[in-house]
Order: sequence, then C-alpha cells, then structure tokens
Amino acid sequence: QFNMMFKTNIGPVDDEASATYLRAETAQGMFTNFKNIVDSFQPDLPFGIAQVGKAFRNEISPRDFIFRVRELEIMEFEFFIKPDEWEKYFEKWRKDMHGWFEYIGLPKAKIKEVEMPASERAHYSKRTIDFHFDFPSLGYDEFAGLAYRTDFDLTNHQKVSGKNLEYRPKDGGKPFIPHVIEPTWGLDRHVLAVLANAYSEDVPAKNSSEVSAGEQAGEKRIFLKLPAELAPVKVAVFPLLKNKPELVAKAREVYKQLKKEVKGTVMWDDNGNIGKRYRRQDEIGTPHCITVDFDTLKDDTVTIRDRDTTKQERVKVNEISKGL
Amino acid sequence: QFNMMFKTNIGPVDDEASATYLRAETAQGMFTNFKNIVDSFQPDLPFGIAQVGKAFRNEISPRDFIFRVRELEIMEFEFFIKPDEWEKYFEKWRKDMHGWFEYIGLPKAKIKEVEMPASERAHYSKRTIDFHFDFPSLGYDEFAGLAYRTDFDLTNHQKVSGKNLEYRPKDGGKPFIPHVIEPTWGLDRHVLAVLANAYSEDVPAKNSSEVSAGEQAGEKRIFLKLPAELAPVKVAVFPLLKNKPELVAKAREVYKQLKKEVKGTVMWDDNGNIGKRYRRQDEIGTPHCITVDFDTLKDDTVTIRDRDTTKQERVKVNEISKGL
Repeated sequence: QFNMMFKTNIGPVDDEASATYLRAETAQGMFTNFKNIVDSFQPDLPFGIAQVGKAFRNEISPRDFIFRVRELEIMEFEFFIKPDEWEKYFEKWRKDMHGWFEYIGLPKAKIKEVEMPASERAHYSKRTIDFHFDFPSLGYDEFAGLAYRTDFDLTNHQKVSGKNLEYRPKDGGKPFIPHVIEPTWGLDRHVLAVLANAYSEDVPAKNSSEVSAGEQAGEKRIFLKLPAELAPVKVAVFPLLKNKPELVAKAREVYKQLKKEVKGTVMWDDNGNIGKRYRRQDEIGTPHCITVDFDTLKDDTVTIRDRDTTKQERVKVNEISKGL
Repeated sequence: QFNMMFKTNIGPVDDEASATYLRAETAQGMFTNFKNIVDSFQPDLPFGIAQVGKAFRNEISPRDFIFRVRELEIMEFEFFIKPDEWEKYFEKWRKDMHGWFEYIGLPKAKIKEVEMPASERAHYSKRTIDFHFDFPSLGYDEFAGLAYRTDFDLTNHQKVSGKNLEYRPKDGGKPFIPHVIEPTWGLDRHVLAVLANAYSEDVPAKNSSEVSAGEQAGEKRIFLKLPAELAPVKVAVFPLLKNKPELVAKAREVYKQLKKEVKGTVMWDDNGNIGKRYRRQDEIGTPHCITVDFDTLKDDTVTIRDRDTTKQERVKVNEISKGL
C-alpha cells in the first residue's frame, strides 16, 4: 500500500501502535495554535498566523532540480476572517501575492493565475487560485496558491478535540468560528524561480564602450540579476593590486566603513585580477563592486561597478553607501 | 533492534533498499559543503560554516518539557583551521561562547564547563567541553558544547568520496586537510534556559511606592525578564481609556510613530484596564509600556513603564524611542 507520507516509528517498538508520519503539510499546526493565540493576544478579526517550515512528501520520482522534492519548505498564512468578508480578503491577498512576486523580482509576464474548477478543489474550498511561474525547460507550473478554506479546519478541530474554538467578538456579538483565507508559497520553488529568472548571460562586444577596464570583451559573461534585497552579498570591495600595501590598507578602511553602513554582507576580495573578481561577483549576484585604485589615494574616490550594466562610476569614499 | 535514528522508506517499495533515516545530526552537511564553499568564496583560513536545522533522535522517553525531545533544532559551526592553531581557536570559541550566553541574558553563575575526559569523548576528538546550564528542577545539564574534531571528518569524506578535500594555501604552501573546531548549541535547550532564567515573580507590597497606578498591590506578579534584544514585543502602546476617541487617536499616532522608529514589534493594546494590560505585557516579557492619558493631550508627554522595576516615567512623545 503506497503512502504519500513518510512512515516511521516512535520509541523502542516497531509496531502499528508506535507508527507515526512525517508532517505532510504545515497548515494544521496553525489551526491547533489558534486558541492559544486568541487567548494570549486577543487580536481583532481579521488576523493571520504565519508559518514557514518543512513538509515531507514521498514523491515516487523527485525531479527538476528543486522543483519536485521529498523534503520541502512551505510558507503559509492562515488568515482568520468574518465569513461574509471572504471575497474582500481573498481579493486583498491575491493582490498582495502579486506584490510579493514583484518584490522578489519575478516579472508579471512569467506568472499566470489558474482558477481551480470546483471538481479539482479540495472539498472544503469554495475558491482556489494556483499561481504558476514559467520555469525554464519545465514551462508553467505551480509555485504558490491561494485558497478559501471556509471554517472547515477549525470546525473539525473543535469537533474532535471537544474544545470550543469560537471567536468572541469584543463588541459582545454572537461567538462564531472564523473562516480562513490561506495563501501558500512553496519556498523551494520560489528559490528556483528567483534563481532561474536572475540567471543571465551576455557577450560584451569587443571594444564596446560598455566594457570597462578588467572586463573580458567578446567573452560570455554569466551574471545573476538578483534584486538587491535578495543578493547574499550586497557589495564587494577590492584593492586594485594585492601586493601594494597602501592600496590594501585604504581598501580595508573602505571595507570597514561599508561593513558599518551597509545592511547585509560586505565581501572582501583580493584574489586574482579585477576582471576575475568581477566575474566571480557577477556569478553570485553581487549588485556592486568597489575598487580602490591609485586615484583613490590621491582624491579619495573609488569606482563603483554595476553588475547589470557593467558601467563604472567614480564616487567619493564618503558617498559610496548613498549610491548602493 | 533498537535504533536511535528514525527509519523510514523512500519511494513506493518498503524494503531494505529503500530504507532511509532522518538526520540525526547536522554537522556532516557542512563537511560535504566544504569544497563548494572553498571553490566559490576562496576564503582564507580560519573560516567557518554555520548552520541551524532540525535533527531527529528516537528518544525512548522524551521529557522535561523541551529539554529532551525527538525533533530538535541544532545550531553549529564547523570552523576550519590550520592544525597547529587548534588550541588558540579552541580558547577563542570558548570565550566567544560565554559572550553569547551573556548576550542572551544567562547569568555566569548558572553556567558551568564540564571537561570531557578522554574516555567519554568521541574517538576523533582531542578535546571537548560541555556547557551545562542550571535548569530549574533539572539541575545542571548540557545545552552547548565545544569540540576539537581534528581532521577526522574531512579525511573520511575524502576517503569515501574519492574527492580531494585538501585546502591550498594562497601563499603556495603545501595543501593539507584543515582541522576543525566545532561549537554546538542546542537551540531548544537555549530557549528553555532563556525562558526559565527570565521567569520571575514578585509581590508588590500594598501601598508600596513601587506600585504605580493600575498595578495590583499585594497580588503576585509574573513577569518574563527577557533581554530587550530577545523580547518578541519591544514596546506596547495603550490609550488610557478605549472609549475616549481623543485618547485613542493620540495613542494611534504614538503607535504609528514608534512602528517607524523601533526595530521589532510594537504592540497596540486597549483591552481591559491598564493594570491588566501591564500584567499581560509582563507575562510576554515586553520591556516597556507606553500609556497615553489626558495629560498627553495637554503637554505631549506619555508614561513609560519599565517591566522589571514597574516604575513609570513621564517622557515627551518625540523622545520616547531614545529611552527604549
């Protein structure tokens, strides 16, 4: 008998009584926390509980890099509402989800909504939209979803647990079971979408004005066009030459200053020539590279090089972080 | 045959060939990532890889709240060094770990180091210190550890994988397998230590000068003395009365201002009388509560109440965030 869940046993005895299953979805943890949260925070409706965590599915054929995996990460909200407001909040979340996709740099043209017909919706859902992203080689496939789950989950938890899960309006109105809008994001699939979308190649033309010192004209350049917010390294600092102590000392100074001013990782790199360093930073998606050269020692300016345009600009040291 | 790991099966067939185990420790993932990181970042020695994640242990009798659990969270570093520097970095980490304990508010007096004798160390370790915390009712027990693992793990991964895992010094020196210092923190046990240490009770004396308006003198007060950095709510804002629109409007203004100025959660609370709100915030460990009252409307000052001393101070609205 094939089970989509992973079965294991708890404790010393491997029998049916000790059987347990790895969590196949994260949603129910939020429903079982519902009462705790209402009792501790006394939130007004609507309010949401958010969670990110692992789920396990015994996929027979995991494939497509991290698209279909057995151990996955899901981010979701259970957003609790008054029953007659479900359409309003469904629309709000739909809009906010597009806002999120935009924030992480995914182009509108690569996203489509797929309205689930009643026959394909979970039996408790009155409306479900799947969001599909146009993955390279895979084509459009699901990476997020939005469902109206009605009061199905809380009603069932109340029935089985015997605990009252009704919400008491603060205005003294009649207690009721809140309804739920559930936006869900597949975290691994988001990572795949962001990386696939950011992956870029170009071939700077030989003698092109866009090829600056240290760039290899005519040679394919691979760069990861990540939104600055998502780039793991925000800025890298290079001394032009690593065997000139005065350049290294000045670059260390700039590096220390940026470490204080820039939110996120500032990387030091003095390995190989400038062109190699640019290529390396391009591949990890660093938006800006700062080079300290001999002019820096004279006039306290550095070059800032932009990952996407490869253009360089000279900027005063104390104005670097403004331009990032 | 009892196994401390959780066994399950992957794919459609439940036979020995499909058997797999839930991860019992997180360390090995960092060793298998070692080569990737060296190739991508070309770091100088020493450098560390840090990871936080779940591990699973089939404890026969999980107990003591979240002290002994089957699904746990571990934070660790693998810190790669030159072999002859192990003692220096072992001492550095030992000191840094105490610095961390201090940062999260754990008193020195409740922590002791337990040096593991050779007979109790893992066979590859040349030195191991366990850090014990004085848990209430449990007494001293382990919540962190520091081990010198030599080159045991990389050497074995190299042997079994057939991949060269040597580090090539940039100065052209002879390639070698780095040695490793491994600081480990049990995240759940840390949470338990922090909560247990923060849990406080006092009974404000009747008519005590320390009991301010809205506090119940002579009644036991429970409060969570969390370091401000760890408190989930940094500050709460109350309108003195929720049925006075002018107070509510002013308090909303203060709330919005603090949302911009304060890093972390600012909570709005207008539920019940001020005394009840203080008690509620005390129990979740909010360091400061701001009350907007009728004087606020006259002179633009509010009261800031300190969780630990219960003392209140009047402060100008535009100076609130300075005092937090």
